[in-house]
Amino acid sequence: MLLPLAAALLSSSALGAPSPGLGYDIVEGLTTEVGQRLAGTEAEARARDWAVARLKALGFANVHVEPFDMPVWVRGAETAEVIAPFPQKLVLAALGNSGATPDGGITAEIVGFPSLDALKAAPDSAVKGKIVFVWHRMMATQDGSSYGTYGLIRFAGPAIASKKGAAAILIRSIGTDHHRVAHTGVTNWLEGARPIPAAALTVPDAEQLERILARGKPVTIHLTLTPKTVGTRQSGNVVAEVPGTDPSAGIVLIGGHIDSWDLGTGAIDDGAGVAITTAAAKSILDGPRPRRTVRLVWFGAEEPGGLGGKAYAEAHGKEPHAIAAESDFGADRIWRFSSQLMKTDPPTYARLTAALAPLGITKNDKGDADGTDVEPTVAAGAPWISLNQDGTRYFDWHHTPDDTLDKIDPAQLRQNVAAWTTMLAILSGGIESQPKQPKRR
Amino acid sequence: MLLPLAAALLSSSALGAPSPGLGYDIVEGLTTEVGQRLAGTEAEARARDWAVARLKALGFANVHVEPFDMPVWVRGAETAEVIAPFPQKLVLAALGNSGATPDGGITAEIVGFPSLDALKAAPDSAVKGKIVFVWHRMMATQDGSSYGTYGLIRFAGPAIASKKGAAAILIRSIGTDHHRVAHTGVTNWLEGARPIPAAALTVPDAEQLERILARGKPVTIHLTLTPKTVGTRQSGNVVAEVPGTDPSAGIVLIGGHIDSWDLGTGAIDDGAGVAITTAAAKSILDGPRPRRTVRLVWFGAEEPGGLGGKAYAEAHGKEPHAIAAESDFGADRIWRFSSQLMKTDPPTYARLTAALAPLGITKNDKGDADGTDVEPTVAAGAPWISLNQDGTRYFDWHHTPDDTLDKIDPAQLRQNVAAWTTMLAILSGGIESQPKQPKRR
Repeated sequence: MLLPLAAALLSSSALGAPSPGLGYDIVEGLTTEVGQRLAGTEAEARARDWAVARLKALGFANVHVEPFDMPVWVRGAETAEVIAPFPQKLVLAALGNSGATPDGGITAEIVGFPSLDALKAAPDSAVKGKIVFVWHRMMATQDGSSYGTYGLIRFAGPAIASKKGAAAILIRSIGTDHHRVAHTGVTNWLEGARPIPAAALTVPDAEQLERILARGKPVTIHLTLTPKTVGTRQSGNVVAEVPGTDPSAGIVLIGGHIDSWDLGTGAIDDGAGVAITTAAAKSILDGPRPRRTVRLVWFGAEEPGGLGGKAYAEAHGKEPHAIAAESDFGADRIWRFSSQLMKTDPPTYARLTAALAPLGITKNDKGDADGTDVEPTVAAGAPWISLNQDGTRYFDWHHTPDDTLDKIDPAQLRQNVAAWTTMLAILSGGIESQPKQPKRR
Repeated sequence: MLLPLAAALLSSSALGAPSPGLGYDIVEGLTTEVGQRLAGTEAEARARDWAVARLKALGFANVHVEPFDMPVWVRGAETAEVIAPFPQKLVLAALGNSGATPDGGITAEIVGFPSLDALKAAPDSAVKGKIVFVWHRMMATQDGSSYGTYGLIRFAGPAIASKKGAAAILIRSIGTDHHRVAHTGVTNWLEGARPIPAAALTVPDAEQLERILARGKPVTIHLTLTPKTVGTRQSGNVVAEVPGTDPSAGIVLIGGHIDSWDLGTGAIDDGAGVAITTAAAKSILDGPRPRRTVRLVWFGAEEPGGLGGKAYAEAHGKEPHAIAAESDFGADRIWRFSSQLMKTDPPTYARLTAALAPLGITKNDKGDADGTDVEPTVAAGAPWISLNQDGTRYFDWHHTPDDTLDKIDPAQLRQNVAAWTTMLAILSGGIESQPKQPKRR
């Protein structure tokens, strides 16, 4: 019976960890002692060193780095100011993979659109040579579903503007806050679109520009963005294991991503994810030896396009995986879960449902696999489980300078660790399959 | 009987203004069409032009600018990064009047203090040649009283550090938020202290630096701040009036300040103040002619040290003032008031108490005069009244890039306008003293 275990795990002292718990301790350490961890940079390399040392110190087996190469983009100068009709500076951040202006910037007229659809519908002649501005609004949702809708403006909008001949594109940040911090994130130059300067205005700046445009006078902006691609560099996945007793039973793959955007310290994205999954794996490590090996991966280079997850699947996708799960949606409480096991293993799905309920978590029979890093492994055949975090606040801070430790609520982080530990205890076939094995702690 | 008037004023349509009201309309226009308005700069001059045009269009009498000269300080580059033990960038903003580093910056060890008192108590030898860091914590208070305590770290801390031989000083922002936006504000080089580079770290950055220091290793920072003083420039007060019928009855002086810090658009500090007092004065203008002249002043150059208020008192301090009042604490609702009239004119104080109560405002018999700009006029003998705004959220945004229009709640702004209108109706001796005069609207 796992229910009392789950309840006990909510108290960090039950894990033998110092309050506010091992999970918090890891994300505090990573964000303080490394800070931002842009993929492919020396900061991400320092983070790998930090992770290896920490995971070894915690007693995990088979701790190692699996390196891979990647193209690296880095931020440069980024400034914008309204030249006319109302001179003033605007705050923005280049999108990942943004093209660059000349060092001295460009000056062009703004053409505004309320949505991506409106931009798509515009004739090229309305856009050519101008700076496109898309001012859409994004609302907060608990399940994060609004990111799918509005994220598209960031993913695809710049390529669409480029194809229409725009000089540059500014989008309202894909975010739900009202602070002067911009939300970066990767964009893609699909279908051979030529990279143009592409940046996100903070939400207050986007609203300001929208008000200025509403005055009906031509609006001219001077924009300087000097990011660059610096060639091929090394990233890597950090791997650690809790060895199982039965190699044929398949691997339980869990993790988060070690890289972050460069503006904040990557506390909620995704220091929390590696911390939560590591703390949960540690409680399995400290308990009876599980039947299945628990493989913990701190994936590299998720932000530029899930490169670590692809590298992992290339190397390990054909190994038998009993389950794959990722934590990459902040640090707020888990409110529901879903899993392919609903169809493939209803008894275990029922056990998970019962065991997670005391933590306030309900099953979602209509859920999907979640997590960019485990997606390629799931595509290769691994069953999946998704522990869904409450995303109501997530897009207030996502990809901004505001992604810092203070945004993490230690109590909600502990609930995450308890849920992951409960899930692992069931799916690693550990605690219940070997009830008579003496505990090592 | 004024009580029904106060209630009616809460509805903007009762003022004949388009929803969300004239007050909101003014602060929206000023912050959008001018933006930041640093004292003594061309931006503040544009704001004066904007104000004169708007006040004339609203129908005020005697609209004019009263210019004065002032020394002007402007922000330069400002960057900081931890060099060792954990390399990472920090976000900060120079304090007004900060000294400058060389263009290439300085590198020095950090010495940290939890409070201004701890810095004061430190021997010079502990500080000499180092970068002082004061990491105090500021809590939100409804009455803003914590600003008195913690503001001292900004006002006086840099001079104290300078006298002890510090190379520079970084303070935790005087703010109650957790965002990567720094709180600037003026500092003073008292007692001949030599200006040194002085800046505020954002609250998350200050907490990060505190955590890094807590690791116990020497912490080295590279700091670049290149602000400069650009000599004497012109500022000015914008004056407008609602002429009264009785010149001997004294002036009712109200207003806020037109200048702002350069980081935000000065919506809550103090676009709201000039907007609230203007909207209230406009309702008097549109009503029966008051007995006393209502003089509305948009004071210039408050932020560098209340220069507009001093210039006003020099020019007008000897004119008879029936009352002086300023709005300069954001846009949230007025929750209490206090006035010298409690002692000098108890019947009028009682009438104010009764008239403001329907707006949820209570009297505070222990209050003080409020407002840097009217302080010199009060010191010259003018009676005072203070309508106290709820400051619980004010220091989340005060002096930061986040001081933008979206922080203003139109409903609370309307309550402010209603309260000021009620106060003016009583103290201008208008509506009740001339009940038989035909209304012009």
